[in-house]
Amino acid sequence: MKKYIIIPVFLIVQFLSAFAQEQQIKLETIAPGVIKMTMGKPDQFSPYQFCAEQPRIEEMAGLSSKELPFDLKSVRIIKNNRGIQVSLPLTSDEQLYGFGMQIGSFEQRGLKKKPIVNDAPVFVNNNPLANIGYTHAPQPFYVSTRGYGVLINTSRFVTFLCGTNEEKQDLNTGDKNQNKLKFSTDQLYQNQPQETWNMWIDIPNTEGVEILFFQGEDIKECVQRYNLFSGGGAMPPLWGLGIKYRVKGDYTQDKVMKMASYFRDNNIPCDVLGLEPGWHTKAYSCSYVWSDKFPKPQEMIDNLNKENFRLNLWEHAYVNPAAPFFNEMKPYSGNFLVWRGLVPDFVNPKARQIFADYHDKELIGKGIASFKLDECDAGNMMDATSTWGFPEMSQFPSGIDGEQMRQLFGYLYTKTLFEAYKKRNQRTWMDYRASYLFSSSLPAVIYSDNYGHNEYISQVSTSSFGGILWSPELRDAASDADMVRRLQTALLSSQVVINAWYLEHVPWYQINTEKNNKNMQSESYPKLENIVRQLFQQRMALIPYLYSAFADYHFKGIPPFRALIMDYPNDEKVRSISNQYMVGQNLMATPATADSTTRKVYFPEGDWYDLYSEKQYQGGKSYKIEFPMDQLPLFAKAGSIIPLAEPLNYIANDAVFNITCKVFGNKPSSFALWEDDGTSFDFEKGNFNQINLSVEGGKGTVKKDGKYDGKRYVVNEWNFVK
Amino acid sequence: MKKYIIIPVFLIVQFLSAFAQEQQIKLETIAPGVIKMTMGKPDQFSPYQFCAEQPRIEEMAGLSSKELPFDLKSVRIIKNNRGIQVSLPLTSDEQLYGFGMQIGSFEQRGLKKKPIVNDAPVFVNNNPLANIGYTHAPQPFYVSTRGYGVLINTSRFVTFLCGTNEEKQDLNTGDKNQNKLKFSTDQLYQNQPQETWNMWIDIPNTEGVEILFFQGEDIKECVQRYNLFSGGGAMPPLWGLGIKYRVKGDYTQDKVMKMASYFRDNNIPCDVLGLEPGWHTKAYSCSYVWSDKFPKPQEMIDNLNKENFRLNLWEHAYVNPAAPFFNEMKPYSGNFLVWRGLVPDFVNPKARQIFADYHDKELIGKGIASFKLDECDAGNMMDATSTWGFPEMSQFPSGIDGEQMRQLFGYLYTKTLFEAYKKRNQRTWMDYRASYLFSSSLPAVIYSDNYGHNEYISQVSTSSFGGILWSPELRDAASDADMVRRLQTALLSSQVVINAWYLEHVPWYQINTEKNNKNMQSESYPKLENIVRQLFQQRMALIPYLYSAFADYHFKGIPPFRALIMDYPNDEKVRSISNQYMVGQNLMATPATADSTTRKVYFPEGDWYDLYSEKQYQGGKSYKIEFPMDQLPLFAKAGSIIPLAEPLNYIANDAVFNITCKVFGNKPSSFALWEDDGTSFDFEKGNFNQINLSVEGGKGTVKKDGKYDGKRYVVNEWNFVK
Repeated sequence: MKKYIIIPVFLIVQFLSAFAQEQQIKLETIAPGVIKMTMGKPDQFSPYQFCAEQPRIEEMAGLSSKELPFDLKSVRIIKNNRGIQVSLPLTSDEQLYGFGMQIGSFEQRGLKKKPIVNDAPVFVNNNPLANIGYTHAPQPFYVSTRGYGVLINTSRFVTFLCGTNEEKQDLNTGDKNQNKLKFSTDQLYQNQPQETWNMWIDIPNTEGVEILFFQGEDIKECVQRYNLFSGGGAMPPLWGLGIKYRVKGDYTQDKVMKMASYFRDNNIPCDVLGLEPGWHTKAYSCSYVWSDKFPKPQEMIDNLNKENFRLNLWEHAYVNPAAPFFNEMKPYSGNFLVWRGLVPDFVNPKARQIFADYHDKELIGKGIASFKLDECDAGNMMDATSTWGFPEMSQFPSGIDGEQMRQLFGYLYTKTLFEAYKKRNQRTWMDYRASYLFSSSLPAVIYSDNYGHNEYISQVSTSSFGGILWSPELRDAASDADMVRRLQTALLSSQVVINAWYLEHVPWYQINTEKNNKNMQSESYPKLENIVRQLFQQRMALIPYLYSAFADYHFKGIPPFRALIMDYPNDEKVRSISNQYMVGQNLMATPATADSTTRKVYFPEGDWYDLYSEKQYQGGKSYKIEFPMDQLPLFAKAGSIIPLAEPLNYIANDAVFNITCKVFGNKPSSFALWEDDGTSFDFEKGNFNQINLSVEGGKGTVKKDGKYDGKRYVVNEWNFVK
Repeated sequence: MKKYIIIPVFLIVQFLSAFAQEQQIKLETIAPGVIKMTMGKPDQFSPYQFCAEQPRIEEMAGLSSKELPFDLKSVRIIKNNRGIQVSLPLTSDEQLYGFGMQIGSFEQRGLKKKPIVNDAPVFVNNNPLANIGYTHAPQPFYVSTRGYGVLINTSRFVTFLCGTNEEKQDLNTGDKNQNKLKFSTDQLYQNQPQETWNMWIDIPNTEGVEILFFQGEDIKECVQRYNLFSGGGAMPPLWGLGIKYRVKGDYTQDKVMKMASYFRDNNIPCDVLGLEPGWHTKAYSCSYVWSDKFPKPQEMIDNLNKENFRLNLWEHAYVNPAAPFFNEMKPYSGNFLVWRGLVPDFVNPKARQIFADYHDKELIGKGIASFKLDECDAGNMMDATSTWGFPEMSQFPSGIDGEQMRQLFGYLYTKTLFEAYKKRNQRTWMDYRASYLFSSSLPAVIYSDNYGHNEYISQVSTSSFGGILWSPELRDAASDADMVRRLQTALLSSQVVINAWYLEHVPWYQINTEKNNKNMQSESYPKLENIVRQLFQQRMALIPYLYSAFADYHFKGIPPFRALIMDYPNDEKVRSISNQYMVGQNLMATPATADSTTRKVYFPEGDWYDLYSEKQYQGGKSYKIEFPMDQLPLFAKAGSIIPLAEPLNYIANDAVFNITCKVFGNKPSSFALWEDDGTSFDFEKGNFNQINLSVEGGKGTVKKDGKYDGKRYVVNEWNFVK
């Protein structure tokens, strides 16, 4: 825990259990609305100590002070030879969410979850719901509809039984359903959780535990508290909200420049170009040195920058003997290699420094805007043939073992590079493939090799409970419709990525990989490209709105893309909806897949408008809707002001947005555009403006407040939709 | 370890490692050819202390005394906060087998294995090879083609990296394959183990370790040693080698009697009838009390016994409040319930006694010949929705936790009932669904709800490395051919089970479940029934031969059904063959599936004969062979004598077999038939005979040796096949 939070212990309670050793349980309020319960000697490598930013205490104090809905005395902690077990009460009407970015399951009550970092979810019998919780960004943290969050501050592998198992002491012998004979194994083994069963948490191999309880009126506020406790949500550079395109892994300098020209010549928005492994002299493991495919890298960087492209470089953290800092890193790395490369002990500040210094001097200092941090999640734990990554039994000089490092590695790696950028007062927006607790303030977005479109959509919702940003990137597609639908989803996320790492041409030139690489243009090419351009432009029009949503993420802890349950905590119908989500304050996204021509959309209370067609829908009802290919599936709340920009092709540092305010329905709430220099951390010193948009007397008004002296937005037009 | 094995410590070595604490490693020869290496304070609930039988020291001493092929000083043991890690050298040409009954993978080198008891294997991407090793009968025990076995005597979850990961200290920077760019994730992440990489074993959450090394000339001898160390292989009652038929779960007493008549009236061999959950007043969890479907159970048992049927009862160990011994068991059970029933703490002798006493008095004493012990494996650890079974965090009064109990539960449960039978000097032959280490002497055969026919076949081979017997039972079938092929496999195993628990009629009446239960006879019915009768009779003819194979299992530790590699250790081609296996001394089984009309069969050195058609095949070669539906796929070695019996319809206690000896090729080795009373443990006091069959001067001769005074075999005929 941060040392400066000196809030006195206000309660010491002793618990006894038939099996437990007698142990002191200590309670402490460590930040407004965050209670820490400690027993025994907690994990030496508990995650919060590594949090990249300080908690935003003041903003946390501004949230409601609603108490936890249960008595902390009802929490049982057992300590024995196995480790620690914790039990918490659940009530009958309670639903649980969280455990980080989950792939498959959304409502977690009645499930067994093991939030462990893994490069792939494990779908038993191909059933995503059955996924135990292995993902790129898992967390031992859940939130409840009753308004509280529970977090186990450990890097050990934890199991949560979310009301799945009955205790002997609760045995009620009056059960009536016991003697029905069953004739299929599905019937025999179906899960029938009862409402009286507790949450049970298993933390093996530890001598103590630290549990954090997050208070809140509802899930949204608990999540806000968690995000603020983690330093507040990350603020992207403005260009980070544009489009990123990753070129083929063997592209040369010339080909990269040609791809850049393609975007500009064809008036297709693009902000970032990403290079894949081929830029290294050695990759798998990495040398971090320009290969001969890039004879004049500085020239390329400069020319791209001139055209307002930012350059992103792929890497992973496994250090090849050809890396210039290999020998320096050797003593600060684990005892196992990965792809014959060193595994830096990022717990050790010295390892972080060696890694960051090299990157700072050779890459960031020379104009590299961001990195893609691959394979920091390690191979599939459940696949006997997947053995890349360091084993859980690895040992690192700092004393951390491979199990703990598996949970923390992606986080620490990303933090290492984030700190290098921050030292330069330069914002970045990275791709990373593994995260864990307290990562809200990391300027990085999770991506995945998994590719189920339905799961990609629901991952936006599941990520939001744990301060994780998720990038449902476009790679290959089974059909033109599949490509367009996936692209729409990608465009409605925290980072838009077209990841064409194995394609010679853009995917909309030809979706078939083999044909694409044989330069065989598809018949749909010009038509598809037009749709792509249009969709890209719709994203670019949203950037001012999204930037405000990220300001809310940073200052209030509100996830910019989030599950409906956060905004409609009292609507029972949204509890199970994971394929629609809120975008910023007033928009709801409802991505469609190529599976059917229409999809069901549920509208929570209040009226709603299609952002583009302006068609109106009634709240509290479901509709079957067919979404056009060339428009994003977005709905605006009645009573809202949505600022839309004239789409730019890229966000230059001095970009100015011409804004049209769309006003939906009557009595619109005001909306605050947020502006700053878009690239530095000066906003942390108050160097930003809020531009208040409101309707007064039927007329739009604009009021500016703040001390940033630039001008980012010009409001040209007000468009009233009734 | 058994206390009476007092062999002095002959060597004490100290190992140092950069990371390890300095620890004493103790070496001790605890039985002939079994070396125990101890470091620190091993697991309190280590499995060997629960072994049901004493080691067969004398027989172990009779095996070769070949030393381990590596210096024990090359074994590294690291102890740290995580637990214990062990590293052992591997050589380039070495292949590894074992980890208990494995489903999917056979050759284990280059794989990551976690032998954990689970009701289902976890096939990542539907690839059985990728199965990490979760099975019904996993073991932290493997054997090597170099002639040694390594066993970790623990009930904690252990991970084996079978030469999959490279250590920093071994880094060779001269690798050439590092810079080839790859364009698919399959390429990126493929496993490329190198021959110099060690075996690494991870035992978390322990303060010590006990490693057993099994010496042997080859894999077979290492396995023999392991089986003899476990008390020798289990000896079935003679009737246990016949056919078992399990009736539908809701069958009434009358229906059971009708099914019995069906077998006898139609001259279809059957020895055992099995009742499913419906016999309990309560099931899931169990009451162990006859339900009203069986108004006169004693009458039924007596009538069945009169017809020489044995009765087997389904149960699991989760004790329903309606069980007569519920209150007595309550204090000796874990803190979690399963299906609202108690989980007996079988580590505690008192729990075993309560459970055994009830069974003895109410069931065994009244004529129940055996039990089917279901669900002792617990739900799928990797399935978020599969939460039946006690959690790993469970606590039991003996002090064992749920993780350790998960590994031991099936074993201890089966042992509890085995001991009840043994106290009566009565042999039994049970079905059980979970096992672990040192279970060779348990008279029980593993079965499974999984049902891949190819996997079912290879499980015969994988089981054999760890003293596990496996029953690839017949349930449903996709086609007539599928039914017959599956039946052939079932007939070539340690226990033949037709498990029709959801079928009104026998499967060969109608393979479609719905139609079967609607009494709709299939068009193939009489034809299929004839094939079934014929195949059953072929099994019955093999019983004397199989009984001898089991005597070899008991006295020599040779698995009756075993992987080819055991008999042909120098034939490189058999290393990867898991779909053919040895049956007893001289037969090879090559089960076919319904997938194709022919299958490839590899014949190891020497000539071979089809047991029925007598067609000859040359050793060292592969053939494509089409197997008839009405004959078991069996081949006899040239130079062997195979005793075949006139098939009986059941094995009465006084059954006598009329034998024809088939002699294949020239200079046949002698063969020893083994005889005893077939039902008691008097053979352990030497009360058995060996009937030596040999060919002298071109004529068959029979010589009897031993003190059993019954006569089980009449050799009528010698049939010379050249």
